[in-house]
Amino acid sequence: MPGSHCSKDIQKNINCSTSTDLSTSSPVNSLTELQPLMLQDNTQEDMKEKEPEQPGGPTGLQKARARFLKGVSYFAGDMELFGKWMEKQFILLQLLDWVLRGAAQVMFVNNPLSGLIIFAGLILQNYWWALNGFVGTLFATISALILKQNRGAIASGLYGYNGILVGLLMAVFSNAGDWYWWLLLPNIFMSMMCPIVSSAIASIHSRWDLPVFTLPFNILVCLHMVATGHYNHHFPQVLIQPRSELPNITWSEIDLPKLFMSVPVGIGQVYGCDNPWTGGIFIISLFISSPITCAHAILGSAVGMVSGLALSAPFGDIYFGLWGYNCVLACIAIGGMFYALTWQVHLLAITCAFFCAYLGSAIANIMSRFGLPACTWPFCLSALTFLHLTTGTSRIFKLPLAKVMYPEKNLVWFWKMKKEEKMKKAEAEREEAEKQQKAIEEELILNEKEQLRLELERAEEGNVQNDASEVKNEETNVEEQRTQRDNEEVGHNDQIEISLPDNV
Amino acid sequence: MPGSHCSKDIQKNINCSTSTDLSTSSPVNSLTELQPLMLQDNTQEDMKEKEPEQPGGPTGLQKARARFLKGVSYFAGDMELFGKWMEKQFILLQLLDWVLRGAAQVMFVNNPLSGLIIFAGLILQNYWWALNGFVGTLFATISALILKQNRGAIASGLYGYNGILVGLLMAVFSNAGDWYWWLLLPNIFMSMMCPIVSSAIASIHSRWDLPVFTLPFNILVCLHMVATGHYNHHFPQVLIQPRSELPNITWSEIDLPKLFMSVPVGIGQVYGCDNPWTGGIFIISLFISSPITCAHAILGSAVGMVSGLALSAPFGDIYFGLWGYNCVLACIAIGGMFYALTWQVHLLAITCAFFCAYLGSAIANIMSRFGLPACTWPFCLSALTFLHLTTGTSRIFKLPLAKVMYPEKNLVWFWKMKKEEKMKKAEAEREEAEKQQKAIEEELILNEKEQLRLELERAEEGNVQNDASEVKNEETNVEEQRTQRDNEEVGHNDQIEISLPDNV
Amino acid sequence: MPGSHCSKDIQKNINCSTSTDLSTSSPVNSLTELQPLMLQDNTQEDMKEKEPEQPGGPTGLQKARARFLKGVSYFAGDMELFGKWMEKQFILLQLLDWVLRGAAQVMFVNNPLSGLIIFAGLILQNYWWALNGFVGTLFATISALILKQNRGAIASGLYGYNGILVGLLMAVFSNAGDWYWWLLLPNIFMSMMCPIVSSAIASIHSRWDLPVFTLPFNILVCLHMVATGHYNHHFPQVLIQPRSELPNITWSEIDLPKLFMSVPVGIGQVYGCDNPWTGGIFIISLFISSPITCAHAILGSAVGMVSGLALSAPFGDIYFGLWGYNCVLACIAIGGMFYALTWQVHLLAITCAFFCAYLGSAIANIMSRFGLPACTWPFCLSALTFLHLTTGTSRIFKLPLAKVMYPEKNLVWFWKMKKEEKMKKAEAEREEAEKQQKAIEEELILNEKEQLRLELERAEEGNVQNDASEVKNEETNVEEQRTQRDNEEVGHNDQIEISLPDNV
Repeated sequence: MPGSHCSKDIQKNINCSTSTDLSTSSPVNSLTELQPLMLQDNTQEDMKEKEPEQPGGPTGLQKARARFLKGVSYFAGDMELFGKWMEKQFILLQLLDWVLRGAAQVMFVNNPLSGLIIFAGLILQNYWWALNGFVGTLFATISALILKQNRGAIASGLYGYNGILVGLLMAVFSNAGDWYWWLLLPNIFMSMMCPIVSSAIASIHSRWDLPVFTLPFNILVCLHMVATGHYNHHFPQVLIQPRSELPNITWSEIDLPKLFMSVPVGIGQVYGCDNPWTGGIFIISLFISSPITCAHAILGSAVGMVSGLALSAPFGDIYFGLWGYNCVLACIAIGGMFYALTWQVHLLAITCAFFCAYLGSAIANIMSRFGLPACTWPFCLSALTFLHLTTGTSRIFKLPLAKVMYPEKNLVWFWKMKKEEKMKKAEAEREEAEKQQKAIEEELILNEKEQLRLELERAEEGNVQNDASEVKNEETNVEEQRTQRDNEEVGHNDQIEISLPDNV
Repeated sequence: MPGSHCSKDIQKNINCSTSTDLSTSSPVNSLTELQPLMLQDNTQEDMKEKEPEQPGGPTGLQKARARFLKGVSYFAGDMELFGKWMEKQFILLQLLDWVLRGAAQVMFVNNPLSGLIIFAGLILQNYWWALNGFVGTLFATISALILKQNRGAIASGLYGYNGILVGLLMAVFSNAGDWYWWLLLPNIFMSMMCPIVSSAIASIHSRWDLPVFTLPFNILVCLHMVATGHYNHHFPQVLIQPRSELPNITWSEIDLPKLFMSVPVGIGQVYGCDNPWTGGIFIISLFISSPITCAHAILGSAVGMVSGLALSAPFGDIYFGLWGYNCVLACIAIGGMFYALTWQVHLLAITCAFFCAYLGSAIANIMSRFGLPACTWPFCLSALTFLHLTTGTSRIFKLPLAKVMYPEKNLVWFWKMKKEEKMKKAEAEREEAEKQQKAIEEELILNEKEQLRLELERAEEGNVQNDASEVKNEETNVEEQRTQRDNEEVGHNDQIEISLPDNV
Repeated sequence: MPGSHCSKDIQKNINCSTSTDLSTSSPVNSLTELQPLMLQDNTQEDMKEKEPEQPGGPTGLQKARARFLKGVSYFAGDMELFGKWMEKQFILLQLLDWVLRGAAQVMFVNNPLSGLIIFAGLILQNYWWALNGFVGTLFATISALILKQNRGAIASGLYGYNGILVGLLMAVFSNAGDWYWWLLLPNIFMSMMCPIVSSAIASIHSRWDLPVFTLPFNILVCLHMVATGHYNHHFPQVLIQPRSELPNITWSEIDLPKLFMSVPVGIGQVYGCDNPWTGGIFIISLFISSPITCAHAILGSAVGMVSGLALSAPFGDIYFGLWGYNCVLACIAIGGMFYALTWQVHLLAITCAFFCAYLGSAIANIMSRFGLPACTWPFCLSALTFLHLTTGTSRIFKLPLAKVMYPEKNLVWFWKMKKEEKMKKAEAEREEAEKQQKAIEEELILNEKEQLRLELERAEEGNVQNDASEVKNEETNVEEQRTQRDNEEVGHNDQIEISLPDNV
C-alpha cells in the first residue's frame, strides 16, 4: 500500500547494487542493506585497500552473522531479488506474485511470502472468504492491467489490496450464506472498479502527495452494501442497526484472557477475521517483512482495546477486535511507514491510534444508521489527517510518496538524507569561513597598501608644500569623511522610508 | 453544460471561418465542418487550382448533399450562426436564447431549438412545473449577470441549467400541490444562489480541470427539501421513507411493454417527468443537436433498466425511470462529451453507466433516510470519478475543458490534434534522419580530407627523410592510433558508468 | 480566527510605525491609523515644512479628538501595542494573553480585552462551562506549542478558538450534569487534537487561500458526541431527535419581546449561551474591538430570526437563538473580514446570512438523525462557498489571507492598494502618452530631414541631368513604391495564412 508509482526505479537501483554484492559474495556489502548506509561505496573501497594486511578477514561470528543477514534479505523486506527474478518469468507466475503482494499490501507490506502466509490464515478462517479474497485481488490486478495503469505499481500489489478487501468483506457481510456463487458476479464487478476509483482518488490526493489508502475499498464495499441492503432478493446484507439503549456493562464480568486475545483478533479483523490464530499468523507474516511494522501493529491493537474500555464500549465488541483493526492500520501508517521513525513520530503514531479509536466509534455509530459497518474509514480519515499535519520540527519528517518503501528502508533513506544534508551544511559553513578569512586577509592587505599610498602621497606633498597647507589639507579630509558619513546615513534613512510603505 | 468559460472565443474563431464559407457558398467548405478536417485550407486551394478544367463541378447528388448539410448546420450542433446573429439583438431576446440554451444544457446540449422542444415536452407534462422551470432558468441567468460571471458561459446556458432543474424539482417534490404561488419565492432565491454555488464549485474543480455538472442543483434542492421537510407549514415536501421490508418481486408479473417504455421515461426523468411522450420529445431534441449524444442517452437508460433488474429493484421504480436518468447523463458525459469518442471510451461510458446505476441505488437508499430523493448525485459522483481516471493509453483522451463542445465537434478536434501530432512527429523524424545523413556525409568528407592531409604529410616527410626513419614513423602512428583507441574505449566506459545511475 | 500564519510580521511592521508615532506624540500620525492612509509619509513632511508659520497648531477640538483616538487605539482593534509589550513578559502571562485572544477569535476578534469580557459573559452564564472553555483554550494553545506551530498564529489566538468551543460545547451537550470532573479528560484530549486537525485542514484549504474557520471544532465535537452518544456509561450526551410531526405554530401566540431578545441571544449562542445578558456582553466585547464586526453580528442575528419565521420554524427555536448564531458568524466573515467592505460586499454578506440560515435548518435536520446538534457547520459551509465565489467585478475583492486583520484595517489596506493601483495606472498612461508624443515628434523631424535630403538630391541631380531624364527617374520611383507595396501585401497575406491553422 505504501509506495507510489515511482517506487519501481528506486527498487531497481538498490536491487542492482545488491545483485552486484551477491556476485562478489562480499559480507560487508550485504550488511549495508540492513544497516544505515553510513559508508559510501568509495569509502568501502578505501577500507579494502587500506586493510589488505588483515590476514584472518572477518571472524567466524561476523561471517555467520553476515550469512544470516544475507539469508534474511532473501525473504524479508520487499523481496526485491525475488521480484527482480520474477520479471523474467511467465506472465501467469508474475500475476501470482502480484496477487500475493496485493494481499500483503493491506498491511503496507510488499512481500509475496507474507501474502502467502496471509492467504493461509484466511483459509484457516473460512474457505469461501479466502476464495472471494483471491478472486477480488486477481480481478483488481487484471483490471489495472487492462486500464494500462503503472506497471511498477501493479507489480508492487498496489492495485490488488483494495481488491482482496472488497472480495473478502463482500463475502463476510453477505447474508446469503457461504458458497452463494452468484456473489462472485458483484465481487468481480466491484474488484474491477477498484483501479478506476484508486486512480481517481490518487488524482485528487496527488495534489498533497498523499496515498489513497483503503479508500477505494471503503467506497466500493459501502456502495454494494447500501445499494442492495438487508431487504434484497439477490444480494441481501447482514442486518446492522444502531444502538438504541444503554448497553449492559458490568466491570466485574470482564474476561481478561479474552481481553488479551483481542490484540491478535484486532489484527485479524483488518481482513475481517475473528479467529485469534489467524491474527497470530498475520503477526508472523508482518514480522518476516518488517519488525517495526509488526511492533506498531500490536501496539495499535492494544491502544484500540484500551480506548474501547475508556469509552465504555460493550465488551463483546472489544473481544471481537472491532476496536483494534483501524488502530492497527493507523499506527503502522504513521509509525515509520509514511513518516521516518523517530521517537516523536512514535508518540504521534500512538496519538493517531487513540484518535482513530475515537473516530472508529463515531463512524461505526453513524454508519450503523444506514446498515453499514465502519469498514476502514476511521483508519483512512485519521491517517490522512495526521499526514496532512505540518509542523516546525524536523523530527517529524513526512517522506515523499515516491520514497516510501518499508519502515526499515525508510529509516535508512532518512538517515542518509540527514547525513548528506549535514555534510552539505558543514561544507557550506567551511567555505563560508574560508571566504570570510580570505576577505579579512584581503582587506588587511588593501588597508596596508592604502596606508602606504597615503604615506607616500603625504611624503610627496610634504616635499612640495609647507606646514600651513598641510594642516588645511587634513581638515578637508576630515570634512570629506564627514560628508561621506552623512551621505551614508541619508542612504540608510532612504532605505527605511522605502521599505515602510511595503510593510505597513 | 459541457463547455468552459473559455469556449466562447473558440466558437467565434470557428464561426468566423464558417461565415466566410457561406459568403462564398462553397459546398466543399461547408462539408469540412461535419467531416474531420482532413484537408487543410491550402490543400483545398491546391485542388481548386489543379481542377479548374472540370467543367461540371460537383455532381447534382453532391450538390444536394452539400445543401442538405448546410441546412442542417443551421439548427444542429450548437447553432453558432444563430448565436452569432443573436449577439446583435435586443437584450431580452438574447436572454430568451440563453434561457433556452440553459434548458438544453442539462443534457449537455448547447442549442436553443433543443431547449424550445424541451420546454414543449415540459408543458406536455405539467404547466406548473414548466413555469417553475422557466422562472428558475431565468433568475439563475439574471443572477449570473448581476454577479458579472463570464458572458460567454452565460450565453452558452452554463448558468441556466442548474436553475431549470432547481425550479422544476422544487415544484415536483413540493407537497403543497400545483399552483401554490408562494413556492416561487424559495424557487427564485434558490435559482439566484445557483451561480454562486456554481462559481464556488468551479473554483474547486478547476484544480483538476473538471466541470461542475449538476452539483449546484443537487446541493440547493437537497438544501431546500431538508431545510423544510415533510412537516412544514409553509413549504412541505413529499414524504420519502427508507425501505424497511423485503419488496414483493414476482418475475412472472413483469410487464414487458412498460419495461421497454422505461427507456424514454428514464430520459424524461432527467427533468423529473414520467410521461413517456415527454421522454420521446427529449430524445428528438437531443437528436437534432447531436446524434452521438442521443445514442448514448438511449444506451444509458437501457443500462440503468438492466441494472435495476440485476439488483432486484421493485419493478415500479424501474418503470418509473428512476434507474435510468442518472445513467443517461453519465453515459452522455463519458461517451464523447468530455472524452474524445473511441471504442475504448464507448466501453468506458457503458461501464460508467453500470457503476452509476449501482451508485444510484446506494445514494437513493442513503438519501431516503433524510426524506430526500437521489437527485442527480449518482451521475455527478460517477462521472467525476471516471473523469479523474488516468491511464497509460492514448485511446482514452480527456479533452481540456476549454475545448469541450459537443461529441461530433470534439471528435473533429481530437482527430485534427492527433493528425498534427503525427505530422510533427514525422517532421521531427525526417529532420533527425536528414541530420544523421548530413553528419555521416560530413564525417566521410572529413575523413577523406584527413586521409589526403596525412598522405600529403607523409609525402612531404618522405621527401626529406630516409627509409629507416619512415618505418619508425609508421610505428609511432600505429602506437598513437592504439592509444587513441584505448582512450576512446575508456571514454566509452566512462559514459557507461555515468549513464548507469540514471538508467538502473 | 481571521489571520493567516503570516499575519505576525505585518502586525510587527505596523506596530513599529505606531510606536514611533507615540514616541513623538504626533497627533497627525495617530490619526492616520484609523483613517485611510491617504497621505504618504513624505507628503506629511512636506505639509509640515510648508505650514510651520501656523502658530496655533491643531485646535483644541482636534487635539481632544486625537487624544481620544490615541486612547482608543490602546484597547481597540487587535491591541498591537499590548501584544508587542506582552512579547517581553513572562511566558505564563503571554499564555494568558494568547488564551484571551483565542476566546475572542471565535468572533474573528484578535483582542485580549474582548476575550476577558467574553469570559466574564461565560461566567455569568455558567461557571462549569466557563471552566471547560478555559481548559479547552489552554490545552489547545499548549498543544500548538508542543507541535511547534507558527508562533505568530499562536500569539493571535488562532489555535485557541477551536479549543474554547470544543471545551464549552462538550460541557453544554454533556448529559452527565455540571461538575462531572471526568469530562475534563476527553475535553483535554479533544482540545489537544485541535491544532492537528487545524493544521490538516489548513493544508487542504491553503490551495485556495481559505481559512479553516471553526471546522476543527465542528469535527471534534461531533466526533466526541457521536462516538459516545446518548446511551453511554461514561460520557452520555443530551438526547437530540429528528422532528417527526407538524410543529404547532400559531402566529397569534408570537411573543414579540422574546423575538427581539433573540437577536442578542443569537450572538450568545455562538458560545452556546442562551442568556440574553451574556449575548449583550458579547456585543460590547465586539464593539470595542471593531464596530463593523459588531454591526454585522447584530445584522446576521436579525437575518437569522427573519429566516426562521419565513421557513415556519417553531418559535421556541427562534427565541433560543438557534437560527441566529450561524448567520452572525457568516455575516461577520463575509461583511468586511475576508472581503474588503464595499456596499456590494455588504449585500453579499446579507445574502450569505440568508443562505446560512437556510443551510442551518437543513444541517440541523440532518444532524438530528445522528443525535447531533448543527454546531457551526452551516456557517463554515456557507462562508466557504461565498469565499470561493469568483466574479468579474472589482468591487467584491477577496483579501489575501495574509493581509486579513479586522474590517477597519482591511478597509484601509484595500483603499491604499486601490490608490496605489490607480497611481501606477496613471503613471503608466502618462508615460505611454509621453512616448507617443516623442515618437510623433521624432517622426516629424525624420520626415523633415528626409524631405530636405530628397530636395537636396533632386537639386544635385538637376544640376547634372536634363529634364527628360528627370521625368524617367520619377516614374522609376513610383514603380519601386508600387512593388514595395505589393510585397507588403503579400507579407500580410502570409501572416493570415500562418495564423489560420491556430484559429480554426
